Amino acid sequence: MYSSRPALLTDHYELTMVSAALQDGTADRRCVFEVFTRRLPTGRRYGVVAGTTRLVELLREFRFDEAEVAFLRDTGVVDERTARWLSDYRFTGDISGYAEGELYFPNSPVLTVSGTFAECVLLETLTLSVLNHDSAIAAAAARMVTAARGRTLIEMGARRAQEEAAVAAARAAYLAGFGFTSNLAAGRRYGIPTAGTAAHAFTLLHDDEPAAFASQVAALGRNTTLLVDTYDIAQGIRNAIAIAGPELRAVRIDSGDLSVLAQHSRELLDSLGATETKIIVSGDLDEYAIAALAAEPVDMYGAGTAVVTGSGAPTAGLVYKLVEVEGRPVVKRSEHKATVGGRKTAVRRHKPTGTATEEIVVPQGTPEPRPHDRPLQRRYVVGGEPVDDLPTLTESREHLRQCLISIPWEGLKLSAGDPTIPVIVQS
Amino acid sequence: MYSSRPALLTDHYELTMVSAALQDGTADRRCVFEVFTRRLPTGRRYGVVAGTTRLVELLREFRFDEAEVAFLRDTGVVDERTARWLSDYRFTGDISGYAEGELYFPNSPVLTVSGTFAECVLLETLTLSVLNHDSAIAAAAARMVTAARGRTLIEMGARRAQEEAAVAAARAAYLAGFGFTSNLAAGRRYGIPTAGTAAHAFTLLHDDEPAAFASQVAALGRNTTLLVDTYDIAQGIRNAIAIAGPELRAVRIDSGDLSVLAQHSRELLDSLGATETKIIVSGDLDEYAIAALAAEPVDMYGAGTAVVTGSGAPTAGLVYKLVEVEGRPVVKRSEHKATVGGRKTAVRRHKPTGTATEEIVVPQGTPEPRPHDRPLQRRYVVGGEPVDDLPTLTESREHLRQCLISIPWEGLKLSAGDPTIPVIVQS
Repeated sequence: MYSSRPALLTDHYELTMVSAALQDGTADRRCVFEVFTRRLPTGRRYGVVAGTTRLVELLREFRFDEAEVAFLRDTGVVDERTARWLSDYRFTGDISGYAEGELYFPNSPVLTVSGTFAECVLLETLTLSVLNHDSAIAAAAARMVTAARGRTLIEMGARRAQEEAAVAAARAAYLAGFGFTSNLAAGRRYGIPTAGTAAHAFTLLHDDEPAAFASQVAALGRNTTLLVDTYDIAQGIRNAIAIAGPELRAVRIDSGDLSVLAQHSRELLDSLGATETKIIVSGDLDEYAIAALAAEPVDMYGAGTAVVTGSGAPTAGLVYKLVEVEGRPVVKRSEHKATVGGRKTAVRRHKPTGTATEEIVVPQGTPEPRPHDRPLQRRYVVGGEPVDDLPTLTESREHLRQCLISIPWEGLKLSAGDPTIPVIVQS
Repeated sequence: MYSSRPALLTDHYELTMVSAALQDGTADRRCVFEVFTRRLPTGRRYGVVAGTTRLVELLREFRFDEAEVAFLRDTGVVDERTARWLSDYRFTGDISGYAEGELYFPNSPVLTVSGTFAECVLLETLTLSVLNHDSAIAAAAARMVTAARGRTLIEMGARRAQEEAAVAAARAAYLAGFGFTSNLAAGRRYGIPTAGTAAHAFTLLHDDEPAAFASQVAALGRNTTLLVDTYDIAQGIRNAIAIAGPELRAVRIDSGDLSVLAQHSRELLDSLGATETKIIVSGDLDEYAIAALAAEPVDMYGAGTAVVTGSGAPTAGLVYKLVEVEGRPVVKRSEHKATVGGRKTAVRRHKPTGTATEEIVVPQGTPEPRPHDRPLQRRYVVGGEPVDDLPTLTESREHLRQCLISIPWEGLKLSAGDPTIPVIVQS
């Protein structure tokens, strides 16, 4: 079994940079790194910050143990001096950033990491791995939640993602407003409600469909969901109601033309007196397929592949850049036009009605206060210690819900468009 | 820190199916599940099996400990009887399948899991998570290796993938023929050579570029790679050679028009006498961008986002289906045309020259032997125990290399096309 220790979830070059900086005396220069994106995935109108709390929890364990240091020394990645430094390593700097569930746009300073060069540069890869993945999933999931118009979504994509990525994806989907996950590890690790009943294999295992349904109802009660599309859906529904009665909680349809099948199933269920029995549909649903089912008698959606792969945008494109050294702004030449050096402070500006109008980002200063401004950055880590009031997943979920209410309505359109509000960097 | 124990990397419904099957007496029916895909990602000409050995290693640890069982019982996912059964659970069945590094096509029986229903159904999610992810990355990486035409590739995408997915991605890319990874955890866990030198942050940290280069050369020697595009590339190359001398191993260019920059950089390096200094390019390279650089004086490619996200196909679309119960083939009605029940045996048929022509798949039997047939399935687990001769990563890497030599040349084209060879299911 692999170790889930985080310190080696790091790129080789971070260690060689630390080696060189320790040797030339620059390792202790006070630095500020910022996480931001230059662009959203094509056509996306907003990004969703996700993963920050998960990152902070991983940082608690970001130490190099003896075996890890020995590996780095024995493979020649680091010299003796750096090996000793790594043995004592713990992050002692500060991390602040946008709340989980906050929206972001190109050039939003999503996370700010400050401390010595050496202690901060080591966190580049882990920080980006967590934020790029979780934010990508949360953004796709948020669009599905919008498309579902209040109907419940179940995340069931674990089988389409690397096994640990699946757990993080379930968390991000829940943050974005999904109601359940199929993933038990996510249920245990993050307290997310889990759901699931039976696969086609369960029906095929039995001598016939009625036998399978009877078994499931006997074991799980009528408050269960019967999968009715293994053979013939209409017969499946008749079998389901014959066995469970009209008190059956739900039927699930996992294949075929879901629009037509939902209508036919609703009519059939109603004609059998099962007017309260819900219809759950699944099968390669993305935000567009969900939106297309808005007028159909569907009660719940199961989403898998599309949500755990970010629905066409599997990574968020966030970067981790050095913006300040010893109080002096720095910037890579080729980015002079797009990027501004210096530690940034960000607020979101709103109309008196509460609708967001723009984001103001000020390098090395603070924006002139205006009514209806909302500061976007909060503290996550101070002097190496995570703050006591890290947001809970439930709080982050509610935060995103409020943020999505506050953006101009165009921002919620699924069609391709520009970022919903501009980020104005006052340089 | 999270636990990396695998048993809960499982979908809720697998546990409820086990509960119901234990109660109705079907849990012990002898079953065969198969992993296959109905289609390759759009336009792809082959798939690459990856992750199987990784899966088998995870299965060694696939047990439910007390706390996991308590979680499942306390949240009502399973009843007392199932909780007791889970406490004693270990897989005692057989697993066979295609070698890692083997090619696959629609309907290839990539993996076969047999045992009781209950013990096999529990492995669905973990099996698919591992194989879908790793195979997706390996297929994308293999196309990049083809495009690179013998030049070395470095995987440096950790920051664009969930932190643990990144380690698995590095393994899959190495299996596919990449030469190095930036990911230290992959280096330690799988023995993959790691590489990396410096980021733009290292140059920006210093008072000027010559100071940064001098520091890096002092610490790492001349056998290092200097990143020359922080400010002006031509000046960067002059600084690099002035400081390291013409014995400098390599320069890296990470932005701009890589085609033009590679040419100019080569000319400049040669004019400075650094004729042996290599040029490494990186920056959003996918298989097409790599192919487009074939005629340029590039020595190595660094690939990140595209490889770890499967270059447009982040998951492989493999499914895990029950195909046989107590020796009887089973199949879901809606799949009657596309899917055939029963345990399959597969061989690849070749011309006398060694070129593959087709794959023959026989349900509940074995193909009539022909010269130049190659059996495609090997044993991974027998009676719950992994076999002693699990393939090493190096062996799997070589296996894929040989497989790619054996397919018709059209199969290596990057353009969209049909599967290179047909899979003929003899039903």
